[in-house]
Amino acid sequence: MNSIDVCISPDLLHLYKLEGKIVVVVDILRATSCMTTAFANGVQSIIPVATLEECLEYKNKGYLAAAERDGKTADGFDLGNSPFSYMDPSFKGKTLVVTTTNGTQAITKSKAAAQILIGAFLNKTAMINYLANQSMDVLVLCSGWRGTFNMEDTLYAGALVSGLEGKLHHDSDSALMAKRLYDSARYDMMKYLEDSTHFKRLSRLNSYNDIDFCMTEDLYSVVAAMKEGELVALG
Amino acid sequence: MNSIDVCISPDLLHLYKLEGKIVVVVDILRATSCMTTAFANGVQSIIPVATLEECLEYKNKGYLAAAERDGKTADGFDLGNSPFSYMDPSFKGKTLVVTTTNGTQAITKSKAAAQILIGAFLNKTAMINYLANQSMDVLVLCSGWRGTFNMEDTLYAGALVSGLEGKLHHDSDSALMAKRLYDSARYDMMKYLEDSTHFKRLSRLNSYNDIDFCMTEDLYSVVAAMKEGELVALG
Repeated sequence: MNSIDVCISPDLLHLYKLEGKIVVVVDILRATSCMTTAFANGVQSIIPVATLEECLEYKNKGYLAAAERDGKTADGFDLGNSPFSYMDPSFKGKTLVVTTTNGTQAITKSKAAAQILIGAFLNKTAMINYLANQSMDVLVLCSGWRGTFNMEDTLYAGALVSGLEGKLHHDSDSALMAKRLYDSARYDMMKYLEDSTHFKRLSRLNSYNDIDFCMTEDLYSVVAAMKEGELVALG
Repeated sequence: MNSIDVCISPDLLHLYKLEGKIVVVVDILRATSCMTTAFANGVQSIIPVATLEECLEYKNKGYLAAAERDGKTADGFDLGNSPFSYMDPSFKGKTLVVTTTNGTQAITKSKAAAQILIGAFLNKTAMINYLANQSMDVLVLCSGWRGTFNMEDTLYAGALVSGLEGKLHHDSDSALMAKRLYDSARYDMMKYLEDSTHFKRLSRLNSYNDIDFCMTEDLYSVVAAMKEGELVALG
């Protein structure tokens, strides 16, 4: 049986072998939730870039460019990090370029993996079904907050560990911890998150609706993966 | 109010400021539990060293030397990493030199702190009472397993966060997670640890009794701290 493991911060990624594995990158609040929302609403592809400078270069070439830093839309960009802004019907068939504080950095760090997928509660069951039918080990990479542990990404990792029991075995303490947190939280995740730092940070920015949306399970069935430097919907 | 935070791996320590803080280093299975046991049984001081080579140098000078690697006593040393071996009455008043896979490395990495303390369930309440009477921020540093998250050290961190509520505030997700794990586990920690990797690793080495002992709360009232390169009992 293949395995599933959980890396709780990009700053610990050096401890994990990525070659031959599927890496599921997750930044629930809000990068990977936004990306999943974009694909569910017809966006053709997303180019994740690590820096604001790269993002600006694409914008100057005429791309739709989304840049978030510290929870806010960076100056001079079209889009920030609210999932609702990715539902615009005019984006259908287009390519977006995205950079965020934590999420796109985690994607950049995962390049050695055999496949990189984008995780969100919004397509939780679609992801579980996809992973259950592969024959590779899986690593869930939590984007965290500037290198530290965060609650919402770890809850999502736990949702995958839990949903794949019997299909993928796990034997690390981080996978066990993530699963136990999710098992405690799953029936009222908003309540469980109330004391978390990101919840408090985003609440100050008036983003309660964003959080509520990002913690919703199974709104969408699309799963996105990296292909030749771009994210595209798996088909 | 001063704060308490939790660093779940020495590999994330670069994210934390240590200056002016108390760092509580914890390696429940088994380095810091052994050290606490040693002090409770009359050992005068402990010199923690990072490498087997340094440990051997001290041994060659006539010191009692304890060296553990991968859960076993390293070849050529007097003592390994079972807390029961630290109860020897002949150690009373002596100095031990100790190196372990994870625990002593975490102590070495914490040098910039204002004070370094040694944490264990064995003296949990004594530690809580000591910390409650200081006026510095506290960071609990989990030794982990080769850089990755481990369950037992995080449970201990959670025990301190929980025990110091009202005295030290916390606002990181790692502190919140640790507290919630401890709150789930506290009434049957051995059961909670059964699926953890270290439990399984030590069970294979026939160390069930060691684990049971190390998970026992409040056997001892001594608290040990670093002073001029050596650990000594406070007070």
